[in-house]
Amino acid sequence: MIAIPHPSLYRPLVAQALEEDVGHGDITTELTLPGDLSGRGVIVAKEHGVVAGTFVASEVFHQVDPSLEFMPGAEEGEVVGPSKVICEIEGSVASILAGERVALNFMQHMMGIATKAHQYIEAVKGLACRVVDTRKTTPGLRLLEKYAVRAGGAHNHRFNLSDGILIKDNHIAACGAVGKAVERAKLDAPHTLLVEVEVTNLEELQEAIEAGADAVLLDNMNIDQLREAVALVRSRRPEVKVEASGGITLENIRQVAETGVDIVSSGALTHSVKAVDLSLEITNHT
Amino acid sequence: MIAIPHPSLYRPLVAQALEEDVGHGDITTELTLPGDLSGRGVIVAKEHGVVAGTFVASEVFHQVDPSLEFMPGAEEGEVVGPSKVICEIEGSVASILAGERVALNFMQHMMGIATKAHQYIEAVKGLACRVVDTRKTTPGLRLLEKYAVRAGGAHNHRFNLSDGILIKDNHIAACGAVGKAVERAKLDAPHTLLVEVEVTNLEELQEAIEAGADAVLLDNMNIDQLREAVALVRSRRPEVKVEASGGITLENIRQVAETGVDIVSSGALTHSVKAVDLSLEITNHT
Amino acid sequence: MIAIPHPSLYRPLVAQALEEDVGHGDITTELTLPGDLSGRGVIVAKEHGVVAGTFVASEVFHQVDPSLEFMPGAEEGEVVGPSKVICEIEGSVASILAGERVALNFMQHMMGIATKAHQYIEAVKGLACRVVDTRKTTPGLRLLEKYAVRAGGAHNHRFNLSDGILIKDNHIAACGAVGKAVERAKLDAPHTLLVEVEVTNLEELQEAIEAGADAVLLDNMNIDQLREAVALVRSRRPEVKVEASGGITLENIRQVAETGVDIVSSGALTHSVKAVDLSLEITNHT
Amino acid sequence: MIAIPHPSLYRPLVAQALEEDVGHGDITTELTLPGDLSGRGVIVAKEHGVVAGTFVASEVFHQVDPSLEFMPGAEEGEVVGPSKVICEIEGSVASILAGERVALNFMQHMMGIATKAHQYIEAVKGLACRVVDTRKTTPGLRLLEKYAVRAGGAHNHRFNLSDGILIKDNHIAACGAVGKAVERAKLDAPHTLLVEVEVTNLEELQEAIEAGADAVLLDNMNIDQLREAVALVRSRRPEVKVEASGGITLENIRQVAETGVDIVSSGALTHSVKAVDLSLEITNHT
Amino acid sequence: MIAIPHPSLYRPLVAQALEEDVGHGDITTELTLPGDLSGRGVIVAKEHGVVAGTFVASEVFHQVDPSLEFMPGAEEGEVVGPSKVICEIEGSVASILAGERVALNFMQHMMGIATKAHQYIEAVKGLACRVVDTRKTTPGLRLLEKYAVRAGGAHNHRFNLSDGILIKDNHIAACGAVGKAVERAKLDAPHTLLVEVEVTNLEELQEAIEAGADAVLLDNMNIDQLREAVALVRSRRPEVKVEASGGITLENIRQVAETGVDIVSSGALTHSVKAVDLSLEITNHT
Amino acid sequence: MIAIPHPSLYRPLVAQALEEDVGHGDITTELTLPGDLSGRGVIVAKEHGVVAGTFVASEVFHQVDPSLEFMPGAEEGEVVGPSKVICEIEGSVASILAGERVALNFMQHMMGIATKAHQYIEAVKGLACRVVDTRKTTPGLRLLEKYAVRAGGAHNHRFNLSDGILIKDNHIAACGAVGKAVERAKLDAPHTLLVEVEVTNLEELQEAIEAGADAVLLDNMNIDQLREAVALVRSRRPEVKVEASGGITLENIRQVAETGVDIVSSGALTHSVKAVDLSLEITNHT
Repeated sequence: MIAIPHPSLYRPLVAQALEEDVGHGDITTELTLPGDLSGRGVIVAKEHGVVAGTFVASEVFHQVDPSLEFMPGAEEGEVVGPSKVICEIEGSVASILAGERVALNFMQHMMGIATKAHQYIEAVKGLACRVVDTRKTTPGLRLLEKYAVRAGGAHNHRFNLSDGILIKDNHIAACGAVGKAVERAKLDAPHTLLVEVEVTNLEELQEAIEAGADAVLLDNMNIDQLREAVALVRSRRPEVKVEASGGITLENIRQVAETGVDIVSSGALTHSVKAVDLSLEITNHT
Repeated sequence: MIAIPHPSLYRPLVAQALEEDVGHGDITTELTLPGDLSGRGVIVAKEHGVVAGTFVASEVFHQVDPSLEFMPGAEEGEVVGPSKVICEIEGSVASILAGERVALNFMQHMMGIATKAHQYIEAVKGLACRVVDTRKTTPGLRLLEKYAVRAGGAHNHRFNLSDGILIKDNHIAACGAVGKAVERAKLDAPHTLLVEVEVTNLEELQEAIEAGADAVLLDNMNIDQLREAVALVRSRRPEVKVEASGGITLENIRQVAETGVDIVSSGALTHSVKAVDLSLEITNHT
Repeated sequence: MIAIPHPSLYRPLVAQALEEDVGHGDITTELTLPGDLSGRGVIVAKEHGVVAGTFVASEVFHQVDPSLEFMPGAEEGEVVGPSKVICEIEGSVASILAGERVALNFMQHMMGIATKAHQYIEAVKGLACRVVDTRKTTPGLRLLEKYAVRAGGAHNHRFNLSDGILIKDNHIAACGAVGKAVERAKLDAPHTLLVEVEVTNLEELQEAIEAGADAVLLDNMNIDQLREAVALVRSRRPEVKVEASGGITLENIRQVAETGVDIVSSGALTHSVKAVDLSLEITNHT
Repeated sequence: MIAIPHPSLYRPLVAQALEEDVGHGDITTELTLPGDLSGRGVIVAKEHGVVAGTFVASEVFHQVDPSLEFMPGAEEGEVVGPSKVICEIEGSVASILAGERVALNFMQHMMGIATKAHQYIEAVKGLACRVVDTRKTTPGLRLLEKYAVRAGGAHNHRFNLSDGILIKDNHIAACGAVGKAVERAKLDAPHTLLVEVEVTNLEELQEAIEAGADAVLLDNMNIDQLREAVALVRSRRPEVKVEASGGITLENIRQVAETGVDIVSSGALTHSVKAVDLSLEITNHT
Repeated sequence: MIAIPHPSLYRPLVAQALEEDVGHGDITTELTLPGDLSGRGVIVAKEHGVVAGTFVASEVFHQVDPSLEFMPGAEEGEVVGPSKVICEIEGSVASILAGERVALNFMQHMMGIATKAHQYIEAVKGLACRVVDTRKTTPGLRLLEKYAVRAGGAHNHRFNLSDGILIKDNHIAACGAVGKAVERAKLDAPHTLLVEVEVTNLEELQEAIEAGADAVLLDNMNIDQLREAVALVRSRRPEVKVEASGGITLENIRQVAETGVDIVSSGALTHSVKAVDLSLEITNHT
Repeated sequence: MIAIPHPSLYRPLVAQALEEDVGHGDITTELTLPGDLSGRGVIVAKEHGVVAGTFVASEVFHQVDPSLEFMPGAEEGEVVGPSKVICEIEGSVASILAGERVALNFMQHMMGIATKAHQYIEAVKGLACRVVDTRKTTPGLRLLEKYAVRAGGAHNHRFNLSDGILIKDNHIAACGAVGKAVERAKLDAPHTLLVEVEVTNLEELQEAIEAGADAVLLDNMNIDQLREAVALVRSRRPEVKVEASGGITLENIRQVAETGVDIVSSGALTHSVKAVDLSLEITNHT
């Protein structure tokens, strides 16, 4: 149901993470384990969370050793609790150990994001308001972090600087006025992209709407201001999308959503993540 | 004072992060800004934190545009508060904007880690106990995360599987006993590496010491067990290094350190990071 | 005026092209030229065309030898004729010769595209109709080819599969109907992207409009059909963007544009390019 | 019969082209298609042409999804007409669509070249004269373009600056004289390479022959000059290979070949290509 | 028994070596061999040596053509003589020929090192002294060269600058004294690494021991000095490891080892290698 | 005088070697040296040899730290003796130490090859016979090794499988006969390459000459056979180049050359190299 990124998009990240962790070899395992020992490992949740990234774990073990067999034990997006087996890996114990830390590091991080996104979604249940992420992601991991946001039930804002137009304060300052900036963008933007503009007060908002903005980002407004802004948009150009951003927390997100904005965006979804505790256990040696 | 990693070690990470964020071009800026506009940007702290990663921000802006001038405004490891200017960038506004998000994403994450490490160090002040990190890092960012740990005043555990020996439960299970695993490792390990072994009770600890372990990791022991373990080590082979690990928090770290262990390690230092809030402000256009 | 792509976006292409052409060394030059000979080369047009790619030529010579001095002699987008000096290069003759073929190969191809785009633009002069490219580009060169389209005065369609939504026949067949496909896309698409859909007749067009499509691509319709389609759109949801595609030539483009469509797209702009003839002449040796 | 390049030589090109076209995901397909839909696609010729590059299309679909089954429907070098099925692909429709444009972009370009080469070869039928390409290729695609030249029945000139010696005007100018340049090259060139030299008149030709050139390139000579040049070579050192270059077209190539030259080279074979029209049709869904 | 490096660690080296040797294709084979010829090749020793690198040869042929079947004929570390079949390869003759030279170049070099290591080990038989390598390796090949050292029965010193601490003369000079340098290193070094220090006389040795060095490298001392140094260490801190280095040859290694040092290191093990003569013979065509 | 390879050709090798040696940082230097210490290092010969690779050492230090100043102290190809300063480096001591081992590893290896080549050349002084290398090189280092051969005064054979044609026993076996193999190659080979064929006796030699071979490699013939072979070639087609190969040593090379062959090739030039002893000394700290 949740579209999984194409393997070619995360394969290099996995290779890089393995290179980082394996260095020039797993010396402890080489020194202490017989090379031909095989067994079965399970990745188990140690606390509640939303599953995200089993396909990355699968790629990790596949890159370490194509002869390992990987079996997912939970669905992406599934809410799990302690002791739940998220996946199993069978084959060479040395290979399982070589991939262990990297697989866990990816999954505990992705599940941390999916779990937080899920909490936000639960908080706005029943309201016609999207929760979206931002570009405040961990360098190198944006694809997987944005996927994890979706796995938790939220949506994505633009991916990067080239697949969405968002006119911000500095662009406006350089153009001289909100309206002028919006007009310039509308003139030459590819016809496949909307023009969104960040505004901080009702005057800017009005100017943006009149200049033809397709969407507006209300930056750091309080609840009253948000309500007024929504009213203004609905009375002039109701089709314009309204996004609220700045200082969104689990505590205030429902209140913000209730102002009638179409979209609430939160940087903390990806920039301040509490890892979900997972462990890999080798359950039998043969 | 804190050794900065060699640029060649983080240059590819910066390139990759820029590629991720810039996509095929910063379309908003291209549409709204005159190409030749120049100005001055400052990265400012919005809350308290420990500075880490100014050299990465410098590399970001240098890669975006070698003609940008970058001036640090704070020392690595310095504790700063709101409004503190951490660095300044002068030159093309389009270039500053193209690097903005990537520079902030690196620094807010690294400062989050340095700040947490600093809190742990403050908590154990006056005790002869090292605080160290683990391999529970964000895939791809280990070098910078481990640097940030040092910037916050803590130390590093091994970097990866090849530059330190740590015999864990699965290695022991495969060898049959703690002692046998330690002996095998001592026999063939490069003479430049110590042999550390994870133990979960006093019997294993005793076996490890007798087999010649150079260091022991006491896994998930409570305060009483830690105290007993330290006493055992000191009475038999006092030179053996003792590390406590598992469930370390800002609340309990001092108590753990007071048991007399040489080292306390914490995964949360790097796996559950709260970003330090930073912003980039373009202060004047020319 | 035309936004030049950021150097980091084409630097690897240039490196790859040099690697391809230089192999393990320019053996002829090594055998016949004194290593320290310096001189001055000029790239000269041998026929009419629109300048595009001087910055790529500059990068080529810079990569070959950073001590070469490169001076553009014409503006990007400028229409030039035979004998016009497009750029000059001064320094080591061996270095100029090592970069010659690669620089020319890039520029003759990019100028070929810019020249064709320019002809299309001239053909629709005075009409409120955009000419855009497609994804029918030469593998590896899309960034530079789409730039060349802009240098010739035309616009770009989406860059790739991730920065624009275009529902085509196969997507529609899989969903069962145009309307259903459009609805699904509108439901979950990032709010920064429009939803465009390809239609082949007026029934599909009507369904698309009613389902909320933001743009429609009229595929392979004749002039009468195009006129009817435009009328239908304008009478129902005039804000919907209308694109005509299929079989566009220099001969018929004005007629197509006169039907009132907003956009005309042409694959031949990039897939069937006649190179503009250029040569590099070493004018003096010193 | 025509030697196919080794997969390792074009695998990176295919990966790069997919990266370019897929971006961070095929968002339209993700939004509209069920992930598990499978079907059968065929690549069909829409006009006459010579088949080239089915192995590249195969690599494209294999990289997108190793579970796709690829079946060629025509031989490399085969002349085909409209409706001819060139290859079939079976499996996930989402995967087929993800590879569609890249596969077509490679093949339409390679077939364009093969088709042109074939026309040249037909034009010189019965004459003992080789048609060869040049280094005027599209940056990054030389390997595949030179292959396509062979698929069309022509031969290759040197691949790059390191696997053939061709002394041109600038080398001669630097050495002072044709003869001196040839002598220097003969002195130190690897014994596995011939020494070819470009000449523009009979005096230079005579000097080249006397200095020991193994091959001569007659640059931009007219038919009479070519005939005289051939006579001169045959009377002095008949084993010297004679190549004619400059302004070769489908119209004049036979006349040039009839002068008795051994080789005719043409840059237009690769620098000005008209793509062969192909389309991918999904013929049934299951 | 000898731990083989993980394939991901040498796969890029093999790819690079093939790229280097294959260039843009094996032109001789393409010109003379039918593409579908299959046969059987054997790699045969032409002189005595220790087997090392069959897994690299396997990777070479696998990369060239995954359909080739590779069968090792000897164990890693095995001593073989003339005519011994080290491995067999079955499948396409063109593919076997494309990989031949690269496979032989890797193996003849690795076997040269393993053979020399084996001779050193034989020379110190019965003594409790390790023979180790250094960082004087061939650029790019350290992993395989250090493996070959182990295949010959010797041990490895540190792999690189980050996985072992070795304080040398220049570090000492910068700190002012041996003792100070050792103390600084002990203070902040990761607890998983020993601190080794190079000393050139007994005074430095004594200072090193007192400052807490874990290991000492006796640089270029003669036999008498080595004996005295060992005595000094054993009388003060017997657990300190003692390494002798400088001018070690097959002739003097036993004498050095008999002084009681724990470790003898030799750069010549890897920097001056005599290749073991191997050849690949195609024994039958089918 | 000796053409230095273009930096882009060895830059990646240097980067790779530094990555290999530096790992995640020079921990010893970080622990013991003040970061701002500057000084002057010299690379000094400890024995006689031919200089080769100063430009590589320069690249090493430049990559480590662009602010280091590098000054060559000897010419490429120059014969030097003990104590000769080959180059100097000024700047950060930490940077000099980080590059030390890699620079020395490259130069000691390249000088080993240049020195051996020089000895061979001296041995054939006065004879009109070229000494050339083979493809028996160290994987990854062919470019630098073949350069070193030239620095020592010898010549290069083909670089790889694509820039020279050499028909060997297996090709001949597959074709059925020497003559047939040569004819096939002559038919389709690029006209810029000679056709060389390996023969083992006079019958094959005669067949090769008659079939039009441009060069012949006399494989493992003794002195009498070589003399006869030369006589045969000179009597039939004197322009054919004659190469002797197999078992060439410093002892027998003159005798082989005196048989009148044009070329003597030796694998040992590159596959069995004795490193020239060099050291880097930091002569003053400031």
